[in-house]
Amino acid sequence: MAGKDLPVSPLMLPMPELPPVPGVRLGTGRAEIRYKAREDVTMMVFPAGTTVAGVFTQNKCPGAPVDWCRAALKGGKARALVVTAGNSNVFTGKAGRETCQQTARAMADLAGCKPNEVFLASTGVIGEKLPTEKLTAALPPLFGSLGEDGWAAAARAIMTTDTFPKGATRTAKIGDATVTVSGIVKGSGMIAPDMATMLCFLATDAKVPAGALQAILKKGVDRSFNCVTVDSDTSTSDTVLLFATGATKHPRVPAEGGPMLRDFARAVSEVLMDLALLVARDGEGAQKLIRIDVTGAVSAKSAHRIAMSIANSPLVKTAIAGEDANWGRIVMAVGKAGEPADRDKLSVGVGGVWMAREGEIVPGYDEAPVVAHMKGREVEIQVDIGLGRGKATVWTCDLTHGYIDINGSYRS
Amino acid sequence: MAGKDLPVSPLMLPMPELPPVPGVRLGTGRAEIRYKAREDVTMMVFPAGTTVAGVFTQNKCPGAPVDWCRAALKGGKARALVVTAGNSNVFTGKAGRETCQQTARAMADLAGCKPNEVFLASTGVIGEKLPTEKLTAALPPLFGSLGEDGWAAAARAIMTTDTFPKGATRTAKIGDATVTVSGIVKGSGMIAPDMATMLCFLATDAKVPAGALQAILKKGVDRSFNCVTVDSDTSTSDTVLLFATGATKHPRVPAEGGPMLRDFARAVSEVLMDLALLVARDGEGAQKLIRIDVTGAVSAKSAHRIAMSIANSPLVKTAIAGEDANWGRIVMAVGKAGEPADRDKLSVGVGGVWMAREGEIVPGYDEAPVVAHMKGREVEIQVDIGLGRGKATVWTCDLTHGYIDINGSYRS
Repeated sequence: MAGKDLPVSPLMLPMPELPPVPGVRLGTGRAEIRYKAREDVTMMVFPAGTTVAGVFTQNKCPGAPVDWCRAALKGGKARALVVTAGNSNVFTGKAGRETCQQTARAMADLAGCKPNEVFLASTGVIGEKLPTEKLTAALPPLFGSLGEDGWAAAARAIMTTDTFPKGATRTAKIGDATVTVSGIVKGSGMIAPDMATMLCFLATDAKVPAGALQAILKKGVDRSFNCVTVDSDTSTSDTVLLFATGATKHPRVPAEGGPMLRDFARAVSEVLMDLALLVARDGEGAQKLIRIDVTGAVSAKSAHRIAMSIANSPLVKTAIAGEDANWGRIVMAVGKAGEPADRDKLSVGVGGVWMAREGEIVPGYDEAPVVAHMKGREVEIQVDIGLGRGKATVWTCDLTHGYIDINGSYRS
Repeated sequence: MAGKDLPVSPLMLPMPELPPVPGVRLGTGRAEIRYKAREDVTMMVFPAGTTVAGVFTQNKCPGAPVDWCRAALKGGKARALVVTAGNSNVFTGKAGRETCQQTARAMADLAGCKPNEVFLASTGVIGEKLPTEKLTAALPPLFGSLGEDGWAAAARAIMTTDTFPKGATRTAKIGDATVTVSGIVKGSGMIAPDMATMLCFLATDAKVPAGALQAILKKGVDRSFNCVTVDSDTSTSDTVLLFATGATKHPRVPAEGGPMLRDFARAVSEVLMDLALLVARDGEGAQKLIRIDVTGAVSAKSAHRIAMSIANSPLVKTAIAGEDANWGRIVMAVGKAGEPADRDKLSVGVGGVWMAREGEIVPGYDEAPVVAHMKGREVEIQVDIGLGRGKATVWTCDLTHGYIDINGSYRS
């Protein structure tokens, strides 16, 4: 079974304790869709009035559950979430659409809501029909067992080739009230081996109009998940959903959100950032977490593109795996980004030590502190383009034999 | 020494015999720039009247020799070429520019021409100053030893981490006259490990005006080198130069070229294609040569981008390394290209067998012939987008432990 033999990532962080989020009842169960000896279905049920925000893969060949969620999101309301692990329901044609319809209908009957208030996500093999009846049969007993304390189990039940469960939580003030924002995520490549997908689910007890919630989620994802890359491949199923139950009383939030949500938005962003970095820490074969800071670009967008060019360069990533402070490859990756750059104004540093400045190596450059930094689990790269004030930060992991081992073997 | 311990690529093809190209005198020598026990300098000298065309890296941080060649190319005339292996003279600031000036001046003195008729290329480590005096001291004895038969030695002397020398030759008719087009190339990644650069040199005895020559070279490179990728990284030094000595008499070619050069353009294209595929065959760690045919895209440009997205996907490349006909990853790579695609019109095949059609797996699909095809040294992927008539073909190699071994180790 996929993932069975993978050693836990050396970059693993222990799962924090996720307290109940008022209004959220959740649980996990077994549908034996692909995995036979573990929980593979996760359910969350929300009270009437729960709003929802979502961000999905930009891949042009999305999975059926992504299509389903995009349509359901138009209503802005959610009463339930059903997640399966083992089969992604991607590239499954009409059968895949029917699986979504039947699952949503079965869940809606249980929760007493409309099918388009049910959200769906699946992760696993591409191109195999999902055995719908196994899934729908598993829902009623699971619905009967829901509770408030299932976050840790849910973080495990959504895993495929992940080597550790991932969660994060924060509290925030809205007026005088304290609300919780908690989330779980799975994914260990932008697409995991045959186990496509990065899935991320957040819930809060705040009462936030869907439009304002969407704006906060979008901004948070742009600064977190959209700044993390493992292997430059974009899953067909990437999904981030944020549910707001409104179970905690606080001053009414206007439709457009506004300053009163500032602390809430901070909490959402922090949870997203924690979760995004956990994905990089569980990147396939990862031995080192890499942070790349680009400054001095002509714009923030340009800085982001340059940073992603470095983060996605196989030559930079293999150099870091080899603990080689190879700044020539960083120069190469800056230059190939296609963004404005001037070799003779460019500076490159590692671990806070500038190695190259203004188009040539720093005179008397001492490699010793850089070599020491490269031997650690967390490596930092600094690039100053020297042209403007645009800056960006992205995270990735190194490219190792482990990545080839995981992705270069047969599916079965 | 870099490359010393690398096994020869299993995709190696024997070097063809390259006959003399009338007008071209060439040779190799030792400057001990980095390598101590092999030839590391290559020289070609051309008669007065030789025209030249060139295509260079799009990387925004090009090496000093690329800047030099771009400027020299404006004259359209060439009398000599000097190539060094072991140091790329990239990111070397003012010292790098002076190395180019001094080398060109020394060579111009020997050949009796202007410095801007001398072309330069270097490949090797980035960011180390090239010991100019070692190089200029090696030029006079080398100039004294030039002959017509040095192509095979030149193909070896320009290598860095290449595991075999690469050359190709064709003849073409211009009017009733027969001319030769020969070329050599080095490079085993778009950028080799610390040994940056794909360098390619062609020569012909045809007499072709520089403008017409440039148009033919540009078109040929677009269809060959620009359709090959090893690892998506773009060297800071990529250089393709084509010299036309005019040593063979044939009807005068007008400035704009035209139909009389059709067969000559065919020969140039074929030599470029041979050389480009040899680079893919010597891709770092390559065990399989991969051809990707995309049809049915909305335009040829769109087809090319989709094909490159597949060719650069680490997940597709590792799947092929593992001999896994994993069409789900191909679907993913099509979708992430950002080009128009409709999942429900998409077809994916391997080795001539369609596996997925119109958004789902082909009913009764038999994996056996596909598995057999995947075990071979050459793997073919077919993708039909189903939207239009745009098509493209690109080549790459698989991503293996060998790539990590070569690129993940210390420089020294």
